[in-house]
Amino acid sequence: MTDAQAIWADIEKIRATRPLVHNITNYVVMNTTANALLALGASPVMAHAAEEVEEMAGLAAALVLNIGTLSGPWIEAMKIAARAARKKGIPIVLDPVGAGATRFRTAAALDLLVAAGPAIVRGNASEIRALAAGLGETRGVESRHGSEEALEAARELAARHGTVISVSGAVDLIVGEGSMARIANGHSLMAAVTGMGCAASALTGAFAAVNPSPLRAAAQAMAVMGIAGEIAAVPAAGPGSFQVNFLDALYALSENDIRSRLRMEWI
Amino acid sequence: MTDAQAIWADIEKIRATRPLVHNITNYVVMNTTANALLALGASPVMAHAAEEVEEMAGLAAALVLNIGTLSGPWIEAMKIAARAARKKGIPIVLDPVGAGATRFRTAAALDLLVAAGPAIVRGNASEIRALAAGLGETRGVESRHGSEEALEAARELAARHGTVISVSGAVDLIVGEGSMARIANGHSLMAAVTGMGCAASALTGAFAAVNPSPLRAAAQAMAVMGIAGEIAAVPAAGPGSFQVNFLDALYALSENDIRSRLRMEWI
Amino acid sequence: MTDAQAIWADIEKIRATRPLVHNITNYVVMNTTANALLALGASPVMAHAAEEVEEMAGLAAALVLNIGTLSGPWIEAMKIAARAARKKGIPIVLDPVGAGATRFRTAAALDLLVAAGPAIVRGNASEIRALAAGLGETRGVESRHGSEEALEAARELAARHGTVISVSGAVDLIVGEGSMARIANGHSLMAAVTGMGCAASALTGAFAAVNPSPLRAAAQAMAVMGIAGEIAAVPAAGPGSFQVNFLDALYALSENDIRSRLRMEWI
Repeated sequence: MTDAQAIWADIEKIRATRPLVHNITNYVVMNTTANALLALGASPVMAHAAEEVEEMAGLAAALVLNIGTLSGPWIEAMKIAARAARKKGIPIVLDPVGAGATRFRTAAALDLLVAAGPAIVRGNASEIRALAAGLGETRGVESRHGSEEALEAARELAARHGTVISVSGAVDLIVGEGSMARIANGHSLMAAVTGMGCAASALTGAFAAVNPSPLRAAAQAMAVMGIAGEIAAVPAAGPGSFQVNFLDALYALSENDIRSRLRMEWI
Repeated sequence: MTDAQAIWADIEKIRATRPLVHNITNYVVMNTTANALLALGASPVMAHAAEEVEEMAGLAAALVLNIGTLSGPWIEAMKIAARAARKKGIPIVLDPVGAGATRFRTAAALDLLVAAGPAIVRGNASEIRALAAGLGETRGVESRHGSEEALEAARELAARHGTVISVSGAVDLIVGEGSMARIANGHSLMAAVTGMGCAASALTGAFAAVNPSPLRAAAQAMAVMGIAGEIAAVPAAGPGSFQVNFLDALYALSENDIRSRLRMEWI
Repeated sequence: MTDAQAIWADIEKIRATRPLVHNITNYVVMNTTANALLALGASPVMAHAAEEVEEMAGLAAALVLNIGTLSGPWIEAMKIAARAARKKGIPIVLDPVGAGATRFRTAAALDLLVAAGPAIVRGNASEIRALAAGLGETRGVESRHGSEEALEAARELAARHGTVISVSGAVDLIVGEGSMARIANGHSLMAAVTGMGCAASALTGAFAAVNPSPLRAAAQAMAVMGIAGEIAAVPAAGPGSFQVNFLDALYALSENDIRSRLRMEWI
């Protein structure tokens, strides 16, 4: 089975089984990520109350934790949900939004990295470097680094925590213990829209729900994001129409789109 | 007056008087529902702080309560707002999002059903069945049932609580004591976009603000949702462009659109 | 340098330096305002936890406070962030959403006006009048007044608090001590979309980040909003496509767009 065939098989599995992806995520992107999951064919649910996250995670096929607009009570809810997810044996994806920007975020991300035990961590190069560096450095919000500059950090984190590290950038790096993928799909307009990284984390959850390999799931999600982004960019006049086209492209994604556009290599 | 004429008369009333609809709703759809209300011609306001909901509900022409991303403090705020709404005599719409998925949600929805005294409850078949069944069952988030499978539950709830039950689905059922409507408008793309159900509840609030019959208001809102959905789907390439077209269609809705497309029958 | 040249110079500065704008804003518009800032060329960050707002404001080039869906803890976070912003010497923009609608909002806006010390307050005529009137009056959520009806209120507030007052409406008024601008750009569809006022406040923050004159920054932001709105309205079929086009227009804004459309006069 080629990579393209494997991606297509998992898309068909998602569309057929509509896995429930439980998201505890940030206010900015809740709508975007719910719509991205629906467009892919998955079932999103957003729930953050301590009173229900255990039960909700118990219904889900994957759990996505995103610290974009975090606060104390949400971190606690994330930990409760993660315990339920681990008990049920479903994969957890952690998106450490803004790790490295403030000590609170870096500490929360490090805390969740240990306490939640994510199968996959998906972030940009700055966030991944910040996680590897620990609480020593804080440097701002935006990624100033190419993904390659986070390769060592990703390898270190993958080995230390037994997790897959998915570093997004112009080229995405998916780093597991002993194996990694580079994905060169995508378009520069993706950086002009808020929530594309968060949508990538949500789709990573959907792929992890149907694929037992976190490495494969993380790589496939990034490939699908990039390919839908390329298709969306063609007729886009800017970030507004790009966003609209992106959901349309995800929804209409065909095997031929994957086969003709995929730029993934394993190392 | 035909049903189409009655709907059109209420749309004109909404556009002329711009009723203030106070929403205490979920994070995922706040933007979507505010824009749907504006596109219809109503004035949305979102406010959830215990300190102001009483005063805000007192300014409004309808109150919409939606438990999509609820937590303890929001339930309390919903109750305070409901008391103010009842005191002022304005209609309350309850959207029991996810009732049946977790005990917390089912309990909150049942609690609000009694404490808030909604004129209209709008949900999907699973949610309505969960409300009728009480705390006994929990079965997940998405509606696995056609609306007809919730007919008995809707009748029971309508009789027990003296409220109108609006069950959305491929065919919408609007059930009051002794009378009901079936509405066959709509399009399958509506299920591929988050927040369409929540928008339906918000528009139900706008119609209830100008029509003293909760049964008529609930039916008219679902007809308008369905008709705007049909118009939006025609040029849509997927859920992204559908969403854009939906707001455009609501905004431009004409008497002829209603007359030529309405598929409503009273029983 | 003409006004159009000055605006264009600041747009180029924003695109080149990508100033970080820290927003503590409402749930309804977080996505909209983040995307508007990105489309203009700035870097948005949303963070509201008391534990991190001081550090985040310390990283930022401007702070925007918006009380659209406020609650007690958010007001406290806004004050902490404002202290950090003043200490760092970066401009603060206050958007008193709904001031005048409830006593809680009016009191919070007045409290922040004094405690945060904003360089610029941007609101509609009703909100500005409510701030000037203090806690005496409450009159609802929507602006029932033209901006000219808030001119006296704006002058009084500008003098009393040493701040620039930006009153949006069909004609925008930007009022400083001893000087003011009128801007006649814009389109009526802007009132049919939620969050355009909040986006105006966010863009005001971006311009204030690169221009030391709050009066100039506030005027330039309103001109850019209005011009992008005019361009977006041309091919729009309604508020849905308008929103999409607005982000595209902001992203693609050219010097010629500014020069050919600007309707700004200083008095």
